[in-house]
This record gives sequence, C-alpha cells and structure tokens, in this order.
Amino acid sequence: MTIHRRMELLTQKLAEQCRQIDRKSIDRFMAAILGAKRIFIHGAGRSGLVGRAFAMRLMHLGFNVYVVGETTTPPIREGDIYIAVSGSGKTSTVLAIAKTVKTLGAQIAIITSHPDSPMGELANLRIVIKGREPTRGGHDYLARQLAGQHEPLTPLGTLFELSAMLFLDSMIEELMIAKNKTEGELKTLHTNLE
Amino acid sequence: MTIHRRMELLTQKLAEQCRQIDRKSIDRFMAAILGAKRIFIHGAGRSGLVGRAFAMRLMHLGFNVYVVGETTTPPIREGDIYIAVSGSGKTSTVLAIAKTVKTLGAQIAIITSHPDSPMGELANLRIVIKGREPTRGGHDYLARQLAGQHEPLTPLGTLFELSAMLFLDSMIEELMIAKNKTEGELKTLHTNLE
Amino acid sequence: MTIHRRMELLTQKLAEQCRQIDRKSIDRFMAAILGAKRIFIHGAGRSGLVGRAFAMRLMHLGFNVYVVGETTTPPIREGDIYIAVSGSGKTSTVLAIAKTVKTLGAQIAIITSHPDSPMGELANLRIVIKGREPTRGGHDYLARQLAGQHEPLTPLGTLFELSAMLFLDSMIEELMIAKNKTEGELKTLHTNLE
Amino acid sequence: MTIHRRMELLTQKLAEQCRQIDRKSIDRFMAAILGAKRIFIHGAGRSGLVGRAFAMRLMHLGFNVYVVGETTTPPIREGDIYIAVSGSGKTSTVLAIAKTVKTLGAQIAIITSHPDSPMGELANLRIVIKGREPTRGGHDYLARQLAGQHEPLTPLGTLFELSAMLFLDSMIEELMIAKNKTEGELKTLHTNLE
Repeated sequence: MTIHRRMELLTQKLAEQCRQIDRKSIDRFMAAILGAKRIFIHGAGRSGLVGRAFAMRLMHLGFNVYVVGETTTPPIREGDIYIAVSGSGKTSTVLAIAKTVKTLGAQIAIITSHPDSPMGELANLRIVIKGREPTRGGHDYLARQLAGQHEPLTPLGTLFELSAMLFLDSMIEELMIAKNKTEGELKTLHTNLE
Repeated sequence: MTIHRRMELLTQKLAEQCRQIDRKSIDRFMAAILGAKRIFIHGAGRSGLVGRAFAMRLMHLGFNVYVVGETTTPPIREGDIYIAVSGSGKTSTVLAIAKTVKTLGAQIAIITSHPDSPMGELANLRIVIKGREPTRGGHDYLARQLAGQHEPLTPLGTLFELSAMLFLDSMIEELMIAKNKTEGELKTLHTNLE
Repeated sequence: MTIHRRMELLTQKLAEQCRQIDRKSIDRFMAAILGAKRIFIHGAGRSGLVGRAFAMRLMHLGFNVYVVGETTTPPIREGDIYIAVSGSGKTSTVLAIAKTVKTLGAQIAIITSHPDSPMGELANLRIVIKGREPTRGGHDYLARQLAGQHEPLTPLGTLFELSAMLFLDSMIEELMIAKNKTEGELKTLHTNLE
Repeated sequence: MTIHRRMELLTQKLAEQCRQIDRKSIDRFMAAILGAKRIFIHGAGRSGLVGRAFAMRLMHLGFNVYVVGETTTPPIREGDIYIAVSGSGKTSTVLAIAKTVKTLGAQIAIITSHPDSPMGELANLRIVIKGREPTRGGHDYLARQLAGQHEPLTPLGTLFELSAMLFLDSMIEELMIAKNKTEGELKTLHTNLE
C-alpha cells in the first residue's frame, strides 16, 4: 500500500469515527463552552497536545482559556469549565486534577473513548469518540496489515487523537458562527510573538 | 450545515490535501529520517504541537528524537536531522534556529505550505502541504460559508496543521513497517509516567 | 528597607536554610544519582521549574536525564531514579506519578520541606529543606514586615524554591568534581538550539 | 571543600552580585511593571525557567502576565511590557522576538550580564547582573578549584541565573508592598490545579 492510499483510508476512517459522535452531547458541550466564565484545558501526551491546539483557537475566538500546567494558569472556580482529553479516561495526572475540580464546583467535560472510565464517571459532560477496537484481531495491526487487511495501522491512541483534533477544529467553526466571528477577527488575537 | 456534515467535508478536504503531497519528497523524507543519527523537531504554535505529536511517536518507534526548546534537548551535530513544521515558512524563532542548524552541518527538512519561503530555501528537504488559498474569495471564509458555499471554514492555519498531522501519522505507519515494529513494541516505549 | 537590604537578608536566610540540610542525606542522594541508569525529574509550579533547571545541568554533565511530562520522555524502569521537588510533599499530580513509580521498582528521591508527607513516605531518599515556619506570627509576613521586623517576605514557597535551586546547583558542582568534568566539557553538551 | 561550605560561599557570592545591581534601574523597572497594561516574559534555557518563576508570582500578585511561547499567550500591543531574561543578551530566539516587539511599540526590558549586547541595545530598560568573569583565570574554574581556590564553580550561566532569580523574587516582595498585598491574597490567586 502506498502512503497516499494509507492517508486516503485514514481520512475515511476519521470520517467514520466522527459520524458516530452523539449530536446531543455536542450541543450540550457547545452550550457549556459558550456559558462558561473561563475554560481550562487538560490532557497528557498526544491528547494533551490536541487539547492545547483547541485552547489556542479558543483564545483566538476571545474566550478566557488556560492550559492546566502552564505557568500563568489561575485557580479554577465555580462557573468555569474544565475540559479533559483522555482516550482511556484514566490517565493518573489528569484524574488527580479532575477529582480536585469536582470538589471546587466547576463543570467537568471529558473527550474520551471510555465514558464508563473513572474520568467519565466524574464528568458532567462526555463526548465519546471511539478509538480502535483492539478486540477485533488483537493489538497487532501490523500482522493484519501485512496479511493484506488494508486498514490504517493507527498505533496506540492515534485514531482517537486525530478524530478528537478534527472534532475540536469543527467545534471551533461552530463557535465562530455562534459568536459571529470572522477569520480576520481571529487573526487579531493570534499571538504576534512567534 | 450540521457539525457532522462539517466534519465530513473536512475529512474530504484533508484527503484532497494529502493526495497532492509529492511522492518523491516523501521517499526522500523517509530515507532521511531512517538515516539520521538523531532527530530534532521544531515548530511554533499549533504547528509546534503537531511536530511534538510526531516526535512522541518517533520515540515510541525507538528513534533518538528531541523537541527544540525542551529541557534536556542536547546540541545538534552533523549527521542529525532538524525537522521544522511551519506553514508560512517564516516563523521568526523557527527561522532563527534553522539558520544556526545550517551552519552546524545538520540536515534540514521542512513541512510547509511555502517551499519558496526563507525556511524553504534553507532546507535540504521540503514536504509541501497546501494550506487554504486565501486568494479565492479573500480571507473571509465566514461570509462565503453563510452565503451557502459549504466549504469548511478552517480558520488561519487549521487546514495545514490537520493535514500535516495526518501526513505525519501516516509516516509513522510507514516507519513501523520499514522498521518492522509491532504496536506492542511501540507500547513498551510509551511513557509510563502520565 | 531598600531592595538591596532585602536581597542581602534573603541570601543570609538562604545560607541558614542550606546549613540545615542533613549531610548524610546529601551523600546518599549523590550516590543514588551517580549510580542510577537514568534520571527522571518531576515537579509542579515553581518547584517544577527548579527541577528542570537541575535536569538541564545534569544533561550538560552527560547524565541520561528526562523531565516527566515533556514530549520524548521514555518509560521509567528498575535501575532508574525518580527525583521529585515538592515543598508540601503532597502535590496531587506529582504524588500520582510517584505512586506509579513505586510499583515499577525505580528509586524515589524527594526534595521537600515535609519528610512526613505522603510523598516523603513513598520515597527511598529524602532531602529536607525547611520552608518558612508559618506558625511564627502567622502567614501574614507583610504585617510583620511593615511593623519593622525585617525578615524577607518570601511569600508562599519562595524560600523553599530558592534554597532548593541553590542546593541543586551546589550538587552540580559536586557532581562535576566527582565525574571530573571541566566547564568546557559541560559547554559541549549545552544545546546549540536557542 | 564540603558541600555545606560550597553553599555558604555561593550565597556570599550571590549577595555580592546583588549588591552591584544599579538602584536607579531597579526603580525604573519597578515603575514600568506597575505601569504596564500587560506583561510578557521570555527567555531560553535556565534563564527562561527563571523568567517563568517570576511570571508565576506576578500572576499571584494579580498582574496580567504571559509567558512567550505558551499556548494561550495573546499578541503584545502598545502599553504592554516585554521582559527578557538573557545573560548573553544575544540568544537567537529571544532576539528574534525582541526585534518584533520593537516594531510593535511595546516596552522592552532586559535582565542581562551584557547591556551592550544586541538585546541590550534594543531594550528601553536594562537590569545588569554580572555573570562570572571568565577572564580571571579562564573558563576552567575546576582547575582553580582543585588548586585550592575556593570559589564556587557555578558553571556556565549558573551565577547569573541564581542572581536573577534572587533579584526577581526580591522584586516580588517590593511589588507586594507597592500593591499592598498580603501573602493570603497571593494564595487566593495560586493555581489549585497541581
């Protein structure tokens, strides 16, 4: 399989993933973001990077948004929303913070493949994005690939992370429309210090 | 347009973007990564986050890989490769580092929309991923959107960043095959400190 | 009080703090670092920054050293040492990781004001650096200051963090001597990508 | 020399360094911080970590403060101040940003050992903190140390970085007094997400 065919299949797979995200959850997520006083984004590893890409655009849209763990992130309070990106829903550092947030009365939203995870159970809002299903043929996708089963390999959390990024960037578009913001307006809030 | 339709169109757009990436450049990029002693990844903003997502997977594959600007990143030397992600090809901090790298004799690869940019000209290797074409109807995609032209909005560098992430994750799959690595092997190199 | 007088008093306070660090703990800490296969540094907030400043110099000395939470940090294994900087000894994200490290069989060292804290109890090695004693006159140092009690204010963890940085930089000097490294040698390992 | 003696000498050396910081520069720096609309902190390597430790406390004091390069840092504008920490005054990424800031009309302050450096020349305000003087006996402090010259080794930028941190923490105390803030008030702005 050529890499171009691989990318083609991957986009189809992502489209399939995104189709399965529950519409009502998205509406509630949208309303929660628009209604929150401030937004705190959190995640570890590649999920954390996806969360930060979302945070950056929220800032361009004029939201008060912070990344948990960065230098000047303030304390969270009631009226704020904490959004965690965690495929497994049980990343220990993220879970530790989510438990604290729970006691502080802020809202918790999670983007996860596992709504029944410890983080999923803490959350007020769950966006469920399927990851790969490891039961179908076990974790060794390479074997299947070499055997001619032309699915994307998408090792570890790749499929979840890419789908989450695509979903969150689509959320940004919805928020642009909801807040009636043009690209030019986003640009004026883009940092000029790179 | 519903958000599900928006995501659908976005994946189609990404597929279209990826189809246009030059095959020969990819082959050279692949060979350069496999042949490098060590790999240094760099980028600012959302492009930097995409670069880091790639760096993390390269680490899982067993490469000696570092992110420019992180705490324990060593000096670059001849035989190493420096990979920058920069849509515009002229991000000032990235360009400053690339110029230094040039004098040190390491290879420079750039993933960019602008191969004719200052960074593109410094680079030994260019992966060109088209960004949006702002000339078609100006930068105000929202107006077009509202006028019923159902293209994804993808403000600012979004389309470049998503395409770059998708491309780099496909590169990871190619590298898994080239290095004959199973997902299980990647897992043993995934950090256990999250 | 002038700022110059303030700085003078602060250095005296730091000297006093450092005098109280137990010599035997330092010897054991030194031996543990020299004997470890790889070193993992962790901390949150300003303590985390102090830890990273230490990590950077350890890298210049040729150690295999990583910062927990950075992009290409590998998994920890037996034979490695995990060093946490936490004044309170109960920072939740640091504690969550320390518990994981415990199950993985790596050594745990903590630099803390509270050796009897949850983290202190998990650790194999404790370096105790006194923080301010809030009981003497309560937490409101400003009142005392204004009342003419010319102690440094050092709000929150400042005294612990500065003392820890000073101690860790002195450790670096000891390690230079132990490993017989000149400053010139450190320089060759300093990143050339800033 | 024992490590305790080493720490003692180091604090004396720091006190000596701090005594030499020009009072008038400090007054102007203080006024600039108090008068700025927003504060942007920047630095690379260990100097960058020192800058971030300062940024964190400024946030606790209620300032609008951002670290250049972090996820949600906004664009700088006239009326803002950009504070760079750079011993050499010529770190390439920091210099690249400072040049941009200059064109945007914000104030530039630099904490440096070299006021006559490219960054020093760009700046409106210079805080000069002497680093080690490498001419006295060359860079090889280890040789001198072993020869019985009991000065602290403080390799590379260590002396500058420690002095800068000590100075900036003393500035925080001055700012507490200027803004009439108690430690308790700082605590309410300390993040609760660690």
